[in-house]
Amino acid sequence: MALIVQKYGGTSVGNPERIKNVAARVAQYRAQGDRLVVVVSAMSGVTDNLIKLAKEIMPLPAEREMDMLLATGEQTTIALTAMALQAIGVPAVSLTGAQAGIVTDRVHTKAKIQNITPRQVHALLDNGQVVIVAGFQGQTQEGQITTLGRGGSDLTAIALAAALKADLCQIFTDVDGVYTADPRVVPNARKLEEVAYDELLELAGAGAKVMQLRSVEFAKKFGVVFEVRSSLNDNPGTIVKEETKSMEGVVVRGVSLDKNQAKITVVAAPDRPGISARIFKVLSEAAINVDMIVQNVSHGAAKPTTDLSFTLDKPDLLKAQKVMDGLKTEIGFKAIIANENLAKLSIVGVGMRSHSGVAAKMFETLAAQDINIDMISTSEIKISVVIDLAKGEQAARAMHDAFVS
Amino acid sequence: MALIVQKYGGTSVGNPERIKNVAARVAQYRAQGDRLVVVVSAMSGVTDNLIKLAKEIMPLPAEREMDMLLATGEQTTIALTAMALQAIGVPAVSLTGAQAGIVTDRVHTKAKIQNITPRQVHALLDNGQVVIVAGFQGQTQEGQITTLGRGGSDLTAIALAAALKADLCQIFTDVDGVYTADPRVVPNARKLEEVAYDELLELAGAGAKVMQLRSVEFAKKFGVVFEVRSSLNDNPGTIVKEETKSMEGVVVRGVSLDKNQAKITVVAAPDRPGISARIFKVLSEAAINVDMIVQNVSHGAAKPTTDLSFTLDKPDLLKAQKVMDGLKTEIGFKAIIANENLAKLSIVGVGMRSHSGVAAKMFETLAAQDINIDMISTSEIKISVVIDLAKGEQAARAMHDAFVS
Repeated sequence: MALIVQKYGGTSVGNPERIKNVAARVAQYRAQGDRLVVVVSAMSGVTDNLIKLAKEIMPLPAEREMDMLLATGEQTTIALTAMALQAIGVPAVSLTGAQAGIVTDRVHTKAKIQNITPRQVHALLDNGQVVIVAGFQGQTQEGQITTLGRGGSDLTAIALAAALKADLCQIFTDVDGVYTADPRVVPNARKLEEVAYDELLELAGAGAKVMQLRSVEFAKKFGVVFEVRSSLNDNPGTIVKEETKSMEGVVVRGVSLDKNQAKITVVAAPDRPGISARIFKVLSEAAINVDMIVQNVSHGAAKPTTDLSFTLDKPDLLKAQKVMDGLKTEIGFKAIIANENLAKLSIVGVGMRSHSGVAAKMFETLAAQDINIDMISTSEIKISVVIDLAKGEQAARAMHDAFVS
Repeated sequence: MALIVQKYGGTSVGNPERIKNVAARVAQYRAQGDRLVVVVSAMSGVTDNLIKLAKEIMPLPAEREMDMLLATGEQTTIALTAMALQAIGVPAVSLTGAQAGIVTDRVHTKAKIQNITPRQVHALLDNGQVVIVAGFQGQTQEGQITTLGRGGSDLTAIALAAALKADLCQIFTDVDGVYTADPRVVPNARKLEEVAYDELLELAGAGAKVMQLRSVEFAKKFGVVFEVRSSLNDNPGTIVKEETKSMEGVVVRGVSLDKNQAKITVVAAPDRPGISARIFKVLSEAAINVDMIVQNVSHGAAKPTTDLSFTLDKPDLLKAQKVMDGLKTEIGFKAIIANENLAKLSIVGVGMRSHSGVAAKMFETLAAQDINIDMISTSEIKISVVIDLAKGEQAARAMHDAFVS
């Protein structure tokens, strides 16, 4: 008799019919004798509607009140899900994040879970109930309602699985699992049976939209093994866990293509200490997330200058250009060049740690496709290159053929 | 510097624009130096939508889960109302019923308030905040969310006013106050400046739709003086309070007409002990609310029989007829006669205690209008008659002319 934590996202509980489907699935597991804790998100669209209501009242509402407002979304779903289970004869009880014992810090709208005291969850499980817990929310030690920010329901599920020492944590979503590449781009991409935390982290960081980084990081930190699988069918999903010896046999686990990148090059910036620190401090203060940074060797002996390039999310490009223009006089660079016709192509695999020649093979494969490399960045288990946007998908397919298929 | 508890109903907070109006009104009071606790209902329509969602899942959802679901309605409004106040520069904080310290019994969907520990409300008031409290909800000692049933938000306001020892409790609604009669029926009806708890109780019981009986009863029990007034204008409302010596000068405070009544007559029922007990027990088990009961003297010496009539809410008539048909053989009455072309006309006033001849004047007035009386029922401060529905409004106007104008 296993203890399973399941999480269903907003699409999976998007209307009464779908909530009934979720209940039917939960009932199946229960019929096998498993004990179940089910974490649900707000029904799709509900959170957006609440945000719209708030904006009609005030453009920038206080975050404490936003949490009070948004927490109603998941509270609605837990009640309806518990009813749907009761309707098919399965005893079920709903709990808000606070009632489930999820205690967070005081950072409203993006609170961090500090600890979980699942006393009530345990009592209800012992009593034979399926326990439905509101994702995305908790309360401070003082009893203020908080929310956990984007991807918060995944985090609730994983944190509960850790606190309850669950045998399994299942993240039900609208995809079948983690793929070797985006099947829309690479037709022969296939679902992975398992993937290491670090690999999923790198894949997610490289644009694969499976889960928020923080949930994976949390799972890694507390060693929570979880499965990403579809709520629309019964196919097994992808198991995410600590890397094992056997995983090292595969050099490249997956290929990801991020078409949402832009690049700014600072031309002929003075090559002296403190310049890049200044640039990235100002960008960071403007809440612009910088990804890859490349600095070329310096030119000129008397007054050396260098070219500095960095990538960022495409929607931030205009803001970043403004910020950089404002620094031109202070820093004394020659010009900035913006480019948004870029893609970032990454290959990820823990096997890279023990295999050499991976980068060379990647570059050869691109050369064979006549694709020029603009920037390169490497980590222990990932190599990313920035290339022409128009050739991004072609490159992803070539990379998948070369390393994965 | 007065401490005021205000309550705004679902229509008053029905959309963002109206919530802003509520905020503007609250800000006015605050500008006068008053300290404010504001109780709000769910936005009109929201509770009905939630009930509809639940019914799509299950015809008869568990009451605990209904409370979990419905409590989100008021939680949404408190957050939006706090935002609307903050938007115009008034410091405000929202509290759920639980956070406001409202502890109830465990009877889900119609819980009774057991006690209020307004520690957090006091702390926030002392801190200069306007405190927005979710009406209609509380929590059990074990931390389960409960709702108070119909009219629950009024009850929250009055109970908070009692617990906080507020100087004033204002129930803002869509009517100007308590009237001597329904102005749609009696054009020269006028708003009362004050009314005694008992009078309002009798008027409400007689069909005047101002407030739920239980809120008035609670206010009477704890001596909470409250004002019923409009959220649409600045007119003073009606003060509801303990009766005073001076109130006795007015014999009839108000006239009410209830057109929602039906009557069942049980013809020739055996006149022996236990018969009426049996009838009303079965009706009560079918959740049919019986109002007036009249039994005639018995006929026949050997096997005496009697006619028994009672009134009930019109929508219950069909169900009641079925219930009575089921009793026919067991009890052995001759027939039942149903009549739904009835109205109940009542006159109410604490002055009746010290004035005689009121009933006589009422009957004379009806006779002068050629209106026949079907049933009569009296209490210490009320006389009700059942008459022909078609003559109801005419009778109400005549009564108002005779006693009130």
